[in-house]
Amino acid sequence: MSEPKVSEEMMSLFKRRGFVWPSYEIYGGAAGMYDYGPLGFSFRNNIVEIWRDLYKGREGFTEIDSEYVNPAEVFKASGHVDKFADKITYCTECNAPWRADHLVKGVCENPDTMTEAQLDAAFVEHGITCPNCGGKLGPCSDFNLMFGTNIGPGSARPGYLRPETAQGIFVNFLNLYRYNREKLPMGVMQTGRGYRNEIAPRQGMIRMREFNMMEVELFIDPENKVWPRWNDMKDEMLTLVPNDGSGTFQMTAAEAVEKHIIANQALAYFVGTTKQLLTRAGVDPTRLRFRQHLEDEMAHYANDCWDAEALLSYGWTEITGIADRGAWDLTRHSQFSGSDLSSFRKFDEPRETECEKIKVNHKLLGPRFKAKAKAVADAAEAMSPSSVKDGKLTVKVDGEDIVLDSELFEVKLVKEKVSGERLIPNVIEPSSGLDRIFYTALEHSYDKDADGNTVLHLPPEVAPIKVGVFPLMAKDGLEEIARKLCEDVHTHRAEAYYDDSGNIGRRYARMDEIGTPWCITVDYETLEGDTKGTVTIRDRDSKDQKRIKIGDAPGIIDAMLSGKLCFKDL
Amino acid sequence: MSEPKVSEEMMSLFKRRGFVWPSYEIYGGAAGMYDYGPLGFSFRNNIVEIWRDLYKGREGFTEIDSEYVNPAEVFKASGHVDKFADKITYCTECNAPWRADHLVKGVCENPDTMTEAQLDAAFVEHGITCPNCGGKLGPCSDFNLMFGTNIGPGSARPGYLRPETAQGIFVNFLNLYRYNREKLPMGVMQTGRGYRNEIAPRQGMIRMREFNMMEVELFIDPENKVWPRWNDMKDEMLTLVPNDGSGTFQMTAAEAVEKHIIANQALAYFVGTTKQLLTRAGVDPTRLRFRQHLEDEMAHYANDCWDAEALLSYGWTEITGIADRGAWDLTRHSQFSGSDLSSFRKFDEPRETECEKIKVNHKLLGPRFKAKAKAVADAAEAMSPSSVKDGKLTVKVDGEDIVLDSELFEVKLVKEKVSGERLIPNVIEPSSGLDRIFYTALEHSYDKDADGNTVLHLPPEVAPIKVGVFPLMAKDGLEEIARKLCEDVHTHRAEAYYDDSGNIGRRYARMDEIGTPWCITVDYETLEGDTKGTVTIRDRDSKDQKRIKIGDAPGIIDAMLSGKLCFKDL
Repeated sequence: MSEPKVSEEMMSLFKRRGFVWPSYEIYGGAAGMYDYGPLGFSFRNNIVEIWRDLYKGREGFTEIDSEYVNPAEVFKASGHVDKFADKITYCTECNAPWRADHLVKGVCENPDTMTEAQLDAAFVEHGITCPNCGGKLGPCSDFNLMFGTNIGPGSARPGYLRPETAQGIFVNFLNLYRYNREKLPMGVMQTGRGYRNEIAPRQGMIRMREFNMMEVELFIDPENKVWPRWNDMKDEMLTLVPNDGSGTFQMTAAEAVEKHIIANQALAYFVGTTKQLLTRAGVDPTRLRFRQHLEDEMAHYANDCWDAEALLSYGWTEITGIADRGAWDLTRHSQFSGSDLSSFRKFDEPRETECEKIKVNHKLLGPRFKAKAKAVADAAEAMSPSSVKDGKLTVKVDGEDIVLDSELFEVKLVKEKVSGERLIPNVIEPSSGLDRIFYTALEHSYDKDADGNTVLHLPPEVAPIKVGVFPLMAKDGLEEIARKLCEDVHTHRAEAYYDDSGNIGRRYARMDEIGTPWCITVDYETLEGDTKGTVTIRDRDSKDQKRIKIGDAPGIIDAMLSGKLCFKDL
Repeated sequence: MSEPKVSEEMMSLFKRRGFVWPSYEIYGGAAGMYDYGPLGFSFRNNIVEIWRDLYKGREGFTEIDSEYVNPAEVFKASGHVDKFADKITYCTECNAPWRADHLVKGVCENPDTMTEAQLDAAFVEHGITCPNCGGKLGPCSDFNLMFGTNIGPGSARPGYLRPETAQGIFVNFLNLYRYNREKLPMGVMQTGRGYRNEIAPRQGMIRMREFNMMEVELFIDPENKVWPRWNDMKDEMLTLVPNDGSGTFQMTAAEAVEKHIIANQALAYFVGTTKQLLTRAGVDPTRLRFRQHLEDEMAHYANDCWDAEALLSYGWTEITGIADRGAWDLTRHSQFSGSDLSSFRKFDEPRETECEKIKVNHKLLGPRFKAKAKAVADAAEAMSPSSVKDGKLTVKVDGEDIVLDSELFEVKLVKEKVSGERLIPNVIEPSSGLDRIFYTALEHSYDKDADGNTVLHLPPEVAPIKVGVFPLMAKDGLEEIARKLCEDVHTHRAEAYYDDSGNIGRRYARMDEIGTPWCITVDYETLEGDTKGTVTIRDRDSKDQKRIKIGDAPGIIDAMLSGKLCFKDL
């Protein structure tokens, strides 16, 4: 399968200009592995900063950074050891590995739900052979997609590279809950690598073996899935594709919740936040939709799940998933680790409850069991009334079974004041593929101007270089002024780029091609006359130019970057 | 070996307060693996931002992000497959693995330079047995410290988790050199994980299996190791321990270069930059020194190497290494990949050079070789004059050896204009262990006040929370004002923390403990009288308090953070 034309042409430009490079190309590279060059890294980092601004700045969530290599236990609990797999078949002749469902695509329906036996049968029925050598395909089996390794010497402690960052948050739940002073809701975020050892990666940056994620886990009371800042979000207009087959609709977040299209207010809030994140990053809102998972597509743990999908040359592609994962994750880790990963919900006021409890008759128990009496009493009273069988209760003390007759205890109705109850928090998770947002923003910003030159209409906030600074000619003192100005506006968060080579039109074109929103040129008018001390500033999208005072340049760039000033109002 | 007391007490506080947590503790954890909690992550990220400010902001270096999993070829070239190993021995009884050199520490001299045979002999000679069960120790062998894995299905493409970020820069040299428009010097930086699968990690955060690095690779002309901004650095005072055994000296960077103590100006510039980075991060300059590697300690590729060492409860500990790696890295990758990783040095003006070249006699060659004549001529003229043996030249054309007699060619002295020459750039590398800087800044900032409470004297620039905001009492409207103020000053880069629980003294103490430089309290004076609309601001280190206007608070915090304003001048 060849790459779409837009993608191929665009990626070739972005390799040439230093956005992304195939990893270790001098050693032949590997499919699904990319390195971020200087421009790509700055652009990607700017997307992460928007994500932080929204979740850490606005919502006050906390950010953590957990290790990438985890022992197998973590991924047994998460289900990845058992279920994170694709079907693989090897050619019996040339031994090449193939992803089985890809081989029957277009031949069978829903290839990704087929069993090994069904796939084996389909190969025979449809005469499907090795695409490489035409050889017979061997039997299909599960290939686990985690990169395996060992922690420490030998194989005593097998480990895996994490397939998602989320598990590092779940296993730290107790630490985080304590940090949050045992209060819900609690939002925790993490960005970093995820790994998926694809059998045969294709689709360029859309399917990488080593990728970058931005995940947020919101721990919330299952009976109160609302959000304090809901009023600021309820009018956000969303393009929704519900899973009832009714089509695509534009509606506000509030309407989607009222009509029970999105399961709850908190989930809808984070669908809206995702739209804000993506459009600020450069995703075109007219090529963005939120599609609800089909019932049979929904993960077994998900109560509701919406994918933010972008229209790309590859077709509609998931770039963020926003799921209500219920109590699944914490329940599993509680079971597998033996730790109590619950939260405490305090009642508005203490409640009086009645319940049956076992109470021993201490007067009889003492003489009967002597030194052991206290242990027997404690063990008996810790048991539930349902343990009473045929009027007798069997307790275990020091490994010994002791049978208590009915005169030794009774089941009593007891009144208690209870200040609250324990519960497993639910999790709402907006999980983004950072590389996919990166790629989408590039494809959606990619354009040609009237002269046929590439222009990248990236929002200034994410553009890797904020301003190009040029001397009209590299002589007559223009060069020194331009270099000084470039140093004055350049910071590690808002990069400037000095260029004095080639004609000025070529320099503008080079900046347009990488999405630089503004260029400043020092010319002969800077040196003398009425215009002394002024420079031109040029806008990427309109190609308009204006003159500003050289000393005002840093302030103007700042103000335009923060959105307080528009180029047209200069 | 137990942890030093300071470290143990401090780490216990930092776990409790959410700086660092042992990874996946609910599954038993693993030595040498830590997760960064909310406070730790913010603090660590603030250190990275200083590093970016210095290298990306001030020096204009570019930052990249390369993949963590690399195929074996990369690390064969780098030397890690062959040499990145510790000596391991397994107990023949209980099978426990041990790092062999640690077992003979204090018994033999220089354990880390001992061979396997020497270690085996030492076990016998000194009666060293398994520390676990007293069993006999098996023969020592090399244990490679890289985490191994496989890229794609099967074991066709073995890979490793990178032991350092640097290799991802070296293998991208051609891409980077093109991005830099084929100019030197070229500075490239990368931060991210490094991996070292320790046999038995100890020393807490100082020796982690999965750690964080900040590496800078400066590619520079080997004959011109100077730095343009040298004037700004030359007076920086450094504490140096040269490798000639002469002791510890305070001297300026300029003096160290003049006296040939530091090998060159560029290296000295980055030693100075490292001092600036570390002290801004919170390392105490009086507990910081730069120690030159001993001759036999220097890596085979290093021309000169200085370790920034901090005095910790563990003793003097390397936290950054600044090395002149010469042409080693690019030479190796050129050899192993077959790619020409050289740069071009343009002469000031083209030079005329004379050299001997083979020139064929076309008149004789044509009739003799007919259709093959051109191929023979090209092959002959591509050979060097030293290929001539006994007056004859043997050329290979289409796999056939053809012998040319002396009348068919001559060796001529030819004049050529050459515009420049190719050379392998040298590399100067300041490489920092980010976790070690993090740990050092904590230990150096850790203090007790007069009341015996912990105060963390972190520089405001790196403190995880910049300001605590409290209502004196959580009632009478103070709460609302304080919450609103907290939202006004809080951003994702300068975090504020709202707290209304417990008495005010306890709240100050909680903020002191995590290094929050300032606290703002809304009290009854905020509500009325002359002081209406004012709040108190309290300084962590002096514990002084002043009243400021509530509306001025965001600006004052900003100005104090950027160093433009001091608390005492309020």
